[in-house]
Parts: sequence; structure tokens; C-alpha cells
Amino acid sequence: MARNKHPEETVRLILDVAFRLFMEKGYEHTSIQDIIDHLGGLSKGAIYHHFKSKEDILVAVTDQMTAESNQMLADIRDSSGLSGREKLKRIFKESISRPVQDDIFTVAPDFHNNPKLLFSLLHDTIEEAAPNYIVPIIKQGISDGSIKTDYPEQLAELILLAANVWMNPMIFDSSVEESYRKFMIFGQMMQGFGLDVVDDEMLERLKELAFIYEKNR
Amino acid sequence: MARNKHPEETVRLILDVAFRLFMEKGYEHTSIQDIIDHLGGLSKGAIYHHFKSKEDILVAVTDQMTAESNQMLADIRDSSGLSGREKLKRIFKESISRPVQDDIFTVAPDFHNNPKLLFSLLHDTIEEAAPNYIVPIIKQGISDGSIKTDYPEQLAELILLAANVWMNPMIFDSSVEESYRKFMIFGQMMQGFGLDVVDDEMLERLKELAFIYEKNR
Repeated sequence: MARNKHPEETVRLILDVAFRLFMEKGYEHTSIQDIIDHLGGLSKGAIYHHFKSKEDILVAVTDQMTAESNQMLADIRDSSGLSGREKLKRIFKESISRPVQDDIFTVAPDFHNNPKLLFSLLHDTIEEAAPNYIVPIIKQGISDGSIKTDYPEQLAELILLAANVWMNPMIFDSSVEESYRKFMIFGQMMQGFGLDVVDDEMLERLKELAFIYEKNR
Repeated sequence: MARNKHPEETVRLILDVAFRLFMEKGYEHTSIQDIIDHLGGLSKGAIYHHFKSKEDILVAVTDQMTAESNQMLADIRDSSGLSGREKLKRIFKESISRPVQDDIFTVAPDFHNNPKLLFSLLHDTIEEAAPNYIVPIIKQGISDGSIKTDYPEQLAELILLAANVWMNPMIFDSSVEESYRKFMIFGQMMQGFGLDVVDDEMLERLKELAFIYEKNR
């Protein structure tokens, strides 16, 4: 492949190829050389010009997924005709229903060896997702009477920390049974806050994801 | 200083000096060279023989503190005359009351630049502290009727994730006001699980710690 004069095109190509390879072979079994081999002649130097390491590529792939997830969150936050509580429930439903989740759970990068990735997820969750998407919804819920709390920012953080980090089998390597149990405790926690957002359909889907993950490890 | 023939003595010396310097100057402002200068002639090679980086030293210092904390957890877990719920409350009280907490909050290492340290804390919390100390106490609480849950392992993890990670101002850089609000939501979460473990005295102490931390940033 000729040296691309548009660096953003090169980056997109690298990420597309890397994502596909991570899917097919798993992150651990994909090398930088594998990625280069599938880029049709791009030099090692060219790839290292954009990414310092394979982990950097994974972070960029993850960032891309996060951007898509944020779009979904923004759409629900800005939708009309739903109470704050209904929006929260919609978010949990859509988060675990999106087909891309199957892919993420297929890649199943081993966070145990990727402190940087874990850190990036934790940072996105607390610094971005909570204040930009969940807090406005909780505040709407306080206004419309569907959510009761004096601390919307902290409630948003705690909910997302549990849902995105603790319940993420990529981070804590949960079995199907453990994922189910975590979800039950999560539902109980939400009920403790007066938020009845978990239903049987969500439970079924979560079991499905945990199963996909376990199969691909 | 002459080359020590007992490597464990050398390690202990390095950790003691590093801990003191981290206290006095802050982790960010302490260099490996500072540590060497206070070791009275130990060579750079000797220190690198035991630790690959300053962060490695910090992890070892933290591990030492964790060992002390685990001793406290074990003592409460094994004490007699308290119900499971009372033991949980005792743990929260002692965790934030120990004078060493003042030191930790004075060092206030910046986790934002230390993914490895964050990872180590997260790992210790979920893989060690939860199963070894909190789960047995919750199980005792189930037996003595003071705690009601079908999922002791997951409840232990969620509680510790909130208490050790989310409420740790070293990780999420909370202001005094934010720490207070987190504690309030934590207390509400615990009450949702039927666990009334938070009292005013604990709240006062937490404000004190957050204040120490903020003063030393």
C-alpha cells in the first residue's frame, strides 16, 4: 500500500483492521505484525508513527466504541416523552442489547494485563459518561418526581461504576453464574435507591453476553 | 553504606526511606535519586536490583500498608461477641480511624498517573479483601440473622469497590464536599441492603481525612 497522504485515513484503516483481527484471533493472539500484514504493505514505521504499542491501538479501538455508546446515551438523554427513571431503564436495556456488545465480549481483552485500558475505562466512566449523560437524566428524574436523591452526581458515579466496571466481565473475569449474581445485587442496589430498572428480559440478555464471553476466552 | 548481605534488610530500608520521603515531599516530587541520597551510599544499581521504578517502590509501600490493614480485618473477622452486621460497621469505623490513614492521605499519590497502582488496589480489593475478610463476615451475618442477602460474594465486592476505590480521594481526587456526598450515597446504598453501618462520628472523621488530603495536594 502506498504511503497515505491523509493520516486520518491511515489511522481509520489501522483501527478497522485491528478491530477485525482482535475479533477473529483475540487481542492477546494478535501481534502488531499481524496488523501490518493485513494492511497490504504499510511499514512498521508508519504504524508506529500513529501508535506506540498494540495497547495504544486497543485503547483507540475502545475509544471508537465509546464514542458510539455516547451517541446512544445522548439520544436517550435528549429524547422526549420519557421520565428520568424510564430513561435510566432504557439506557441499561440498550447498553446490553446493542449487537456491538457481542463483538466486545468476543474480543474480551484481558484487562488483567492492561492496566492502561482499565484506567481509560474508569476515567471515561467517571469523568465523561456520568456527568454528561447520567447526571442530566437523574436531575430530570428529580424534577419530574421519578427519582429521589439529594446527590445526583454521586449516584450517577456509583451506578456507572457498578454497571460499567464491576459488572464488566472483561475486567473482573466473571463466570456466567457470577455475572448473574452481580446483576441481581446491582438490581437490589438500584431498588434500594427506589429505582426499579432491571427486568427479566435484561437478565436473559446478560446471561447471553456472559456466555459469549466465556466461550471465547 | 556497605552492600547489605541481607537483601530483605535492604528492601525494608528502601521502603522506610521511600515512605518517609513520600510523606514529606509527596510522591510526585520524590525522585529515585532522592531516595538513594537518603540511603547513605547505596548505589543506583543496588536499588534497581530490587525495584524497577519509583512506581514499583510505591506499590511495595502500598502493599506493606495493605498487609497492616488486612491484619485489622482479620482481627475483626475473628473476634467473638459481635454480629456480622456489627463487624461490618466496626470495619468501616476502624478503616477510616487508623492514624496511618492520615499518612496515606498526606502522601496522596496521584493515581491519575499511576495506572499500575490503581490496578493493584482494585485487584487487592476484589481478589483478596472481599473473599478473605468481608465474605466470611457477611456469611456470619446471614447465619446470625443480622444480614440478609442471597449473594454474599457479590455484595462484599460491591461494598468494597465503593468504599476502597470510589470513595478513595486518592483515586478520584474528590473535594471535601464531594467526599461527604459520596459517603452519604454510600450510606444510602448500605441502608438499601438493610445495613445501617454509617454514623455521624464516621462522617466527621471522613471530612477530616478529605481535608488533610486537600491541604496537601
